[in-house]
Amino acid sequence: MASHQIEALTQALARLPGLGPRSARRAVLHLMKKREAALEPLLAALQAVADKLSTCSTCGNVDTSDPCTICRDPKRDDRLLCIVEEVADLWALDRSRLFPGRYHVLGGRLSALEGVRPEDLSIDQLVARIAAGGIDEVVLAMNATLEGQTTAHYLAERLEKFPIRLTQLAHGLPVGGELDYLDEGTLAQALRARRPLA
Amino acid sequence: MASHQIEALTQALARLPGLGPRSARRAVLHLMKKREAALEPLLAALQAVADKLSTCSTCGNVDTSDPCTICRDPKRDDRLLCIVEEVADLWALDRSRLFPGRYHVLGGRLSALEGVRPEDLSIDQLVARIAAGGIDEVVLAMNATLEGQTTAHYLAERLEKFPIRLTQLAHGLPVGGELDYLDEGTLAQALRARRPLA
Repeated sequence: MASHQIEALTQALARLPGLGPRSARRAVLHLMKKREAALEPLLAALQAVADKLSTCSTCGNVDTSDPCTICRDPKRDDRLLCIVEEVADLWALDRSRLFPGRYHVLGGRLSALEGVRPEDLSIDQLVARIAAGGIDEVVLAMNATLEGQTTAHYLAERLEKFPIRLTQLAHGLPVGGELDYLDEGTLAQALRARRPLA
Repeated sequence: MASHQIEALTQALARLPGLGPRSARRAVLHLMKKREAALEPLLAALQAVADKLSTCSTCGNVDTSDPCTICRDPKRDDRLLCIVEEVADLWALDRSRLFPGRYHVLGGRLSALEGVRPEDLSIDQLVARIAAGGIDEVVLAMNATLEGQTTAHYLAERLEKFPIRLTQLAHGLPVGGELDYLDEGTLAQALRARRPLA
């Protein structure tokens, strides 16, 4: 019913997270009906990213330059380093615009089940970065999962010999969270880490 | 935080129907992390469609060839013509694979409110197509809206002089529809058009 080029585009779009076959078809139709306003800009933007796509050799972020935009930003605080599991975590944290320092992407988390060992992550590069000096605080921003926390513990041990302050993200109630709907683990953490009223 | 190329790509994707800023960012990250498996195929597919994009001069469908894949298909029944408002309707109907004939896209619907008059739609082309002969049945597949039905009535008048059978899509309960949740208009239509049990 549609040409093979249209089918190929529909399938490529349907493989994006958040788009299924139905919405991909709607997107293709939109692109074809709005050539100047939608198709051409998307094509140009995609081409520009494809031309320059690179992984930052300093922090592991993906960007269109190496070093990445964050590592090159002179306004960032070199003394603050935030360690995350994946690039997606870096992007999520940076969207909050609350962290003024630099990042380090591990490229995963330690996992006995999936056979991920310390040497599979960029931990040696991280240690080298910290050993080079100039960093005062390292924030462990692992996911609040068993594997994320295992990774954080491992890193804490590997980094304890350095004269740095090691911190981790607070655990507790998410903003908007209702006690009735939260799991016991979160409630236990929130209770354990309770703080005096200001 | 991200380069301007990445921002531009995020914005271009966020403008697609079904994707918001959040899912667009997730899609961009996915594309950048899977260069060979996701970014390159999408880029190639988009380029292929952009290179050949055209509107069918026979039926008004958008495709990568003119005449479009449907108009060129020798297995389609030339005697059956289905009239739809928009290209999206053509695609939706054709997905059902139940209509073996050809299509005609009006490019909209008559609307006093929006100032859409008969000459704004491809009605003259439609009349010329039918006047050329060889068509036995014309299916009016307008939307079941006030404007869709107004358009259908107008077309019925314009086409009554031709020796063709004019039909329209059945109205009634949608598959899976529960009476309790359906509007009175649909129920009235379903009752009025009730049929003897086979």
